[in-house]
Amino acid sequence: MSKVRVAAFSISIDGFGAGTEQSLTNAMGVRGMKLHEWFLATRSFRRMHDSSAAGSEGVDESFAAKSFDNIGAWILGRNMFGPVRGPWPDDSWKGWWGDTPPYHTPVYVLTHHPRASLSMKGGTVFHFVTDGIESALARAKEDAGSKDVRIGGGVSTIRQYLLGGHIDELHIALSPVFLGQGEALFTGINLPALGFGPPKVVAGEKATHIVIEKHNGSQE
Amino acid sequence: MSKVRVAAFSISIDGFGAGTEQSLTNAMGVRGMKLHEWFLATRSFRRMHDSSAAGSEGVDESFAAKSFDNIGAWILGRNMFGPVRGPWPDDSWKGWWGDTPPYHTPVYVLTHHPRASLSMKGGTVFHFVTDGIESALARAKEDAGSKDVRIGGGVSTIRQYLLGGHIDELHIALSPVFLGQGEALFTGINLPALGFGPPKVVAGEKATHIVIEKHNGSQE
Repeated sequence: MSKVRVAAFSISIDGFGAGTEQSLTNAMGVRGMKLHEWFLATRSFRRMHDSSAAGSEGVDESFAAKSFDNIGAWILGRNMFGPVRGPWPDDSWKGWWGDTPPYHTPVYVLTHHPRASLSMKGGTVFHFVTDGIESALARAKEDAGSKDVRIGGGVSTIRQYLLGGHIDELHIALSPVFLGQGEALFTGINLPALGFGPPKVVAGEKATHIVIEKHNGSQE
Repeated sequence: MSKVRVAAFSISIDGFGAGTEQSLTNAMGVRGMKLHEWFLATRSFRRMHDSSAAGSEGVDESFAAKSFDNIGAWILGRNMFGPVRGPWPDDSWKGWWGDTPPYHTPVYVLTHHPRASLSMKGGTVFHFVTDGIESALARAKEDAGSKDVRIGGGVSTIRQYLLGGHIDELHIALSPVFLGQGEALFTGINLPALGFGPPKVVAGEKATHIVIEKHNGSQE
């Protein structure tokens, strides 16, 4: 059955999903890149741009690979799409990922500012949704069909979908870093009360993987 | 050199060091006991009351054993000592631990309400400190001599000593549970800014162990 999933989303030990001071030259914010070291080492990541690349093949890789498996559509917050704020000045910003983004599906970008859809190489089509998270999710589910919808982030987007009760499965990668400040993923969010079951925790090579799924039926 | 240490302090994945609704019959609060499953399984814990008991002997045990090693004095917040609030009605409450508490050192209990010191079997002496965390620490350090002072908790006590710049080493055990609500250990505390270095993360059998130490000299 089709799921709405958060997958391979990295947070620090102190609970932050992004560092502070995001900018064009530092998309992840201060120290934020340390969150992603585990993913950057994986074969799944390295083969995105070089199909013959090596890369790790252990636990971290298996979680990285699974995060891209069976995804039929993505949803991203605007800040994951780029550093532009306010109305789009023109169509020149096409995401962080160059001509061939790693999505290969429709990608719904949440924004308050309308913009025409954008077709990229490799099958990625960016759609800009201005009428809210439920609307974006409905369109993404329709595109995904029997496949899953992946909520890519960032923190604010995941929090909205969690609080709205829309997430079926959450895989976070706890990276061995303290950021000290940033966007906190779980503050004020009570996952057991939202109906999630006990977590599965798996030690990877460079991160600790945590998976929780929503209960079917009664809450814990 | 003598250190001020937090050790074997358990938190949930969402960052809580205790559950809500602590009471006489539920010292850890709702679901809070799940935080401590890793410790309860260890030989160190099991031998506290039965010197011939078995218990786990792996990674979790090595962290449990180290947490009691070379400790010359303890500091506890009042809520770790017991459920009594306000002035002490009498001297009947002697802690959660029976006649022979597992400390075997002086233990400074932070409280606003004076009370005479209390000598227990096995060398534990509870002292009740009403003039603040620095005073308690000074007395504990004097008692400890070349040994370490362990800040036992709870969350509020650890936060005060962290923010005061008094903690040299912090070992937390991340337990595989989401509590959803409770006392958050790290909210508003910026460990890199306080001078702590990068964490060491070690997967145990039932918890993930995280150790950070204060830098000597300049901050990260």
